[in-house]
Amino acid sequence: MILDEIKKTNDIKDIPMDKMDDLAREIREFLIDRISKNGGHLASNLGVVELTMALHLFLDLPKDKLVFDVGHQCYTHKILTGRKDEFEGLRKFGGLSGFPKRGESDCDSFDTGHSSNSISASLGMAAARELSGDDYRIVTVIGDGALTGGMAYEALNNAASLTSNFIIILNDNEMSISENVGGLSRSLSGLRTNGKYREFKDSVEKSLLSLPGGGAMVAGLRRTKAGIKQVIIPEMFFEDLGITYVGPGNGHNIPEILELLKDAARVDGPVLVHLKTLKGKGYTPAERHPARFHGTDKFDIETGLTQYKGRKSKYTDIFSTVMRKQGDRNENVVAITAAMADGTGLRRFSNMFPDRFFDVGICEQHAVTFAAGLSLGGYVPVVAIYSSFLQRAYDQMIEDVCLQDLHVIFAIDRAGIVGSDGETHHGIFDISALMAMPNMTLLAPKNKWELSDMMKFAISYDGPVAVRYPRGEAFDELKEIREPIEYGRSEVISKGSRVALFAYGSMVKTALKVKDILEKDGFSPTIVNARFAKPFDMDMIRTLSEDHDLLVVMEEGILSGGLGENIIMRMKEADIHMDVIPVAIEDRFIKHGSVDELFKVVGLDEESVAGRIKEHYLNG
Amino acid sequence: MILDEIKKTNDIKDIPMDKMDDLAREIREFLIDRISKNGGHLASNLGVVELTMALHLFLDLPKDKLVFDVGHQCYTHKILTGRKDEFEGLRKFGGLSGFPKRGESDCDSFDTGHSSNSISASLGMAAARELSGDDYRIVTVIGDGALTGGMAYEALNNAASLTSNFIIILNDNEMSISENVGGLSRSLSGLRTNGKYREFKDSVEKSLLSLPGGGAMVAGLRRTKAGIKQVIIPEMFFEDLGITYVGPGNGHNIPEILELLKDAARVDGPVLVHLKTLKGKGYTPAERHPARFHGTDKFDIETGLTQYKGRKSKYTDIFSTVMRKQGDRNENVVAITAAMADGTGLRRFSNMFPDRFFDVGICEQHAVTFAAGLSLGGYVPVVAIYSSFLQRAYDQMIEDVCLQDLHVIFAIDRAGIVGSDGETHHGIFDISALMAMPNMTLLAPKNKWELSDMMKFAISYDGPVAVRYPRGEAFDELKEIREPIEYGRSEVISKGSRVALFAYGSMVKTALKVKDILEKDGFSPTIVNARFAKPFDMDMIRTLSEDHDLLVVMEEGILSGGLGENIIMRMKEADIHMDVIPVAIEDRFIKHGSVDELFKVVGLDEESVAGRIKEHYLNG
Repeated sequence: MILDEIKKTNDIKDIPMDKMDDLAREIREFLIDRISKNGGHLASNLGVVELTMALHLFLDLPKDKLVFDVGHQCYTHKILTGRKDEFEGLRKFGGLSGFPKRGESDCDSFDTGHSSNSISASLGMAAARELSGDDYRIVTVIGDGALTGGMAYEALNNAASLTSNFIIILNDNEMSISENVGGLSRSLSGLRTNGKYREFKDSVEKSLLSLPGGGAMVAGLRRTKAGIKQVIIPEMFFEDLGITYVGPGNGHNIPEILELLKDAARVDGPVLVHLKTLKGKGYTPAERHPARFHGTDKFDIETGLTQYKGRKSKYTDIFSTVMRKQGDRNENVVAITAAMADGTGLRRFSNMFPDRFFDVGICEQHAVTFAAGLSLGGYVPVVAIYSSFLQRAYDQMIEDVCLQDLHVIFAIDRAGIVGSDGETHHGIFDISALMAMPNMTLLAPKNKWELSDMMKFAISYDGPVAVRYPRGEAFDELKEIREPIEYGRSEVISKGSRVALFAYGSMVKTALKVKDILEKDGFSPTIVNARFAKPFDMDMIRTLSEDHDLLVVMEEGILSGGLGENIIMRMKEADIHMDVIPVAIEDRFIKHGSVDELFKVVGLDEESVAGRIKEHYLNG
Repeated sequence: MILDEIKKTNDIKDIPMDKMDDLAREIREFLIDRISKNGGHLASNLGVVELTMALHLFLDLPKDKLVFDVGHQCYTHKILTGRKDEFEGLRKFGGLSGFPKRGESDCDSFDTGHSSNSISASLGMAAARELSGDDYRIVTVIGDGALTGGMAYEALNNAASLTSNFIIILNDNEMSISENVGGLSRSLSGLRTNGKYREFKDSVEKSLLSLPGGGAMVAGLRRTKAGIKQVIIPEMFFEDLGITYVGPGNGHNIPEILELLKDAARVDGPVLVHLKTLKGKGYTPAERHPARFHGTDKFDIETGLTQYKGRKSKYTDIFSTVMRKQGDRNENVVAITAAMADGTGLRRFSNMFPDRFFDVGICEQHAVTFAAGLSLGGYVPVVAIYSSFLQRAYDQMIEDVCLQDLHVIFAIDRAGIVGSDGETHHGIFDISALMAMPNMTLLAPKNKWELSDMMKFAISYDGPVAVRYPRGEAFDELKEIREPIEYGRSEVISKGSRVALFAYGSMVKTALKVKDILEKDGFSPTIVNARFAKPFDMDMIRTLSEDHDLLVVMEEGILSGGLGENIIMRMKEADIHMDVIPVAIEDRFIKHGSVDELFKVVGLDEESVAGRIKEHYLNG
C-alpha cells in the first residue's frame, strides 16, 4: 500500500509521480471503506482526491494556507495531513470532525461549514499577508454551487484590489448538493460544452490580424480588458471582476492540475483556476446518485444501499407529505428551497408542482425576500431552510418579512442538535432569534402528526410564521393527543402535581422519559406541550402556578433569549411565583457526536433534567 | 407652477412633454426647499428626478409595481403619487416616511430601507405574476452601489429563469454612499469612459464581414451568446447572468429614458436598463459634495451649510478620533467599512493609513468574514457597521468569528433608536442577537470618554468583542467617573438606596434624569453603569440586592433576549430576590420621528421610567 507511506503532512511529496494514480485509487478505497462504516460526505470527497493531492504537492503546508469552502470535501486533506488513522472516529463523539478544524491540525486554516464564505476568509488572510510582507501562498477551493451564494460574489468583487498572488480553485462538478441553478451556472455549462472555444478565438484573432490595421485592433482588444479570448465565455464573468481566469482543466489529472497551478502562481493578483471534476468519482453508485451520496448514513459497499433499517418516518418525510397534500389542495401554496430540494423533502412537491417550486441556489437571503415578493403577489410561500443556514437570512426575516407583516412560512428543519455534522450545523439559535422578531409566530411540534397540523395552521394563518423541527426520526407516540392547533395555546399531555414540565417541540418526547424517571421517586409531574414559543401560553403558565411549585421549561436551543428565559421574565412581570428551571443550551458551541451523546453533554437528556429536578427538591 | 397640477397619481401624464423640463426643475426646487427645512436624503433624490418622472409616464400605477432599492430615493415618487403636501411632515413623527411604505400609498410596492434586496422582492412578485397570469409591469430601481451587495447578485443570478418582462433600472451615479469599490464597479467605469465602444464594435463586425466566411463568423458570434457587442464591456456581466442589457442612456433625458424603457418592455424576460445619473443634480453644493448631501440635516440653501449649530462631538467623531490614535499607536490595527467610510467616521483613518483601511462595498457579510481572515493573519480588525445593517452578518458573526473565537472588534454605530430614518434603521436587535452568541463580549459606553476607553479595551482584548453606541451627540458629562475598564465589571455612578438603576450605555444619561425626577418624590436611587451586557456584572447585581428592593435594568434594545431578561433569569437561577423592572423596547417595530419623541413612544424616556418606578411602589 502506497497509502501506508502517508504518515504526516508533505509525505506525499516523497511518492514518485508514476505512483500517484495508485495512491488516488487507494485513497478512494479508504474513503469508501471508512464512510461506508461511519457515514459522512462521500460524493464530494471522491470528487476532489486528485485535486487535493495536487494541492499538497504544490503547496508548502502548513506555511501556506488552504481553505475549503463548506469544508465537507476535506477528507483527503485530512488523510494527507497525518489524520488517516483517526478516521475510525470520523464524525463520532471525541473523534475527527467531518469539517476542517484549526484545533485538529495546523494545516486547517479556517473552520468552514456554511457555504460561500471561504473566499472572504482567505481574502482577509491575503490582505494580512500583503500588510506583513510575508510570502506564503493562499489557495481557496470552492464548488460551483457555493458560487451562487452572494457572499462569494461580494468577495470576488473585492479580490481585484489584491496585488499579490491569490488562487481560487473552482471545483466545477456541475452539481452542488442538488442541481445547480441560475444564469451563471448556465454559463459554466455553456463553457463546458463549448470545447471549440480556443480554436474559435485563435481563428478570430488570425482573421483580424490578416486585415490592414488588424494588428492594432487585436492589440486594442487585448489592452482594453483582457483580450478577445473573452468573446463568448464565462471567464469573462470573472475577468469582469478583475480576476484572471485559468482553465478549464481536468480535475482528475494531477499533472494537468499542477501545470495550471504553476500558471496561476505566476499571476500577481487574484486568479481563478477552473477544474472540472466528477462528484462520486470512482464509486459507481455515488457517480450515479451523487445527491444521495452527498451526506450518507452507513452503507453496503457492494450494493450502495444504506444500512439504515429504521422504518420510522423522519420529520422531513412528514413535511414532504404535508407539502404534497397542501400543494394539491391549495394552488396558492408555493415552495422555496436554497439548493436543498432533497434535504428539505421538497423534491416530491417539485415533481408534482414544478411551476410552484423555486430552487434559488445557495441563497438564503434571496430566498426569504423572494418569498416576501411572492406573498405580496398573492401566494403562500413556504421557505424550507435548515435552522443553521437560516441564520444567513436573519436580516431579511426582520426587514422584509416581519416588518411588513407578510404571510411567509418558514419550515425550519434540523432545528436543535443535528449530531455528527457538528458545531456549524446545530440549529440552536433560531428560537432566540425569532422570539425577538416582532410579528413572528414560532411553533414546534411534539410528534409527526402535530408537524402536519402545524404546517396546515401556518398555511391558514396570516403573517410571518415558523415551524421548527429536528433532524431525524419523527416521534410517533401520543397519537391520541391531538387537539386542534389554536393560536398561542399549549396542550396538556398529562396532569400531575408539584412539577410541571413545559416542553417545547422535540422536548415533549424527553419530558415523557423524565416523567418515567421521576415517578420512581414518587413524583407525578404534569407535562404540557408548549406548541408555541412566540407567543407562548402565559395563561397556562399562570394556571400551572396555581397548583405546582416547580416549572421546568425545556427547549432544544440556546438559553439566552429562548423560551425559558422569556417565561421567567414574564412571570416576574406578572408577579407569578413559582420556581423555574430553564432547561436549554448554555452559552457554548457544541461539537459533533451522536444526538444522544450531545444531549448528555448539554444536559438536555432525561437523566440530566430529572437530576436537576431532584436536586432542586433536595436543596429546596 | 406646473407642480401645482400634480395632485395625484398619473396626473403627470396630463402634462405636455415640452413642459417636463420645467416640471423637473420645479420638483428639484421643491425637494431642496423641503429638505433644507426638514433634513433628509437630498443628493440621491436630486439624481433620480427625470428617471422617476419617466417611470411614472411609462407605468400604469398602482396596477404596475415599482420597487426602489434602499428606498431613500423615493421622494419624487412620493410627490408624483399625491403626497406632495405632506412633505412638511417628512421624516417627522406621524408624518411621511423618508422611505417607501405600503401603508402610505398603494403605489409603494415594497417597504425597503436596507440595500440590495429590491431585485429579490420584485422577482418574487414577477414569479407570482407568471403563476397568476396577470399582466402588470414590474420595475426595480437599483443603484450601482447596491449592486455590490451579494444579495443583489443572488437575485440577478435567479432572474434568468423568468420568461416574462421584468425591468431592472441600474441607476448608475458612479458613487453610492461613498465611492464605489470592487472589480465590477471598475468595469462600469470602464464602460462610462469608453464612449467609442459602439464605433469599435461596428468596426470589428464590419472587418469580420469583409472576410471570406466572415458573415458566418459574425452570425456565430451573435448566436453563441449575445454577439460581438459583448466583446469588451460589462454588459457581458449581466448577459452572462442571462439578463438582456439595454443602454447606457442619459438618466436626465426623459425622452431617451422612455425610448430605452420601450425597448426594454419588448423583452420577454429580465432586462437591465443602464442609466447614467448625477447625484445631487441641479444643486451645486450637492453635486460637489454628494456624500455630505446623502443624508443631511437642515441646511442653508444659499451656502449649502448645515444649520446644525451643536458644538458637541458625536459618538461617531469620538470613534473616529480613537481609531486615528490607535492606528498610530498600533500598526496591527486595521479598519473595515461596508461602504460607509464617512458615516462610520473611518474617513480619517483611511486617509492616514490607506493600506490598513478596507472599504468592501455594501457587503456586511463579506466584511465580517474578511475581518476573520485578517485576524488569523495577525492583525486586529475593527469592523464598523451600523447596528441595523450588521443584521446582515448575523451568521458570519456566529460561524466565522465567535465559533473560532477570533479577535474581531465590532464598532456598532447607530445602536438604538436613530430617529427620522425610522423603522428599518433603528438598531434595536443587536443586544439580543449578540448576547446569544457564545464567546462574544458586548460593551456600551456611558459617555464620550468611555467610548474611547472601551475601544482601547477591545483592541487589547483577545476574542470577539463589540462596542455599541448610539447615533448623534455623545454624552459629555460624568467625565470625573472614569474607572479603568475591567472585563465584565460595571461601575457605580452614584450610591443611593432602595432603587438601583442598572443602566446600559446610552441609558446612563437617562438614568441621571430619572434620578432627578425620583428625588423630588423622596427617592434616592443608586445608579450603576452596566458597561458590559455580555458578560454582565452578576456580582454587582448580587451586591445591589443586599440593600435595594428594586432593580431597574435600562437598555436601548428589544426586550426579548436583552440584558434585562438575562438578568432576571440569572437572578432566578441564583435565587437572588429583588423586584426587577426591565426597561427595554417591547415586541414592536418603531416608526420615524425625533429620538426624544420615539423614546416616549417606547417608554425609554425619563418620565416613563420614573413613572413605572413610582407605580411599582404605589402598587407594591
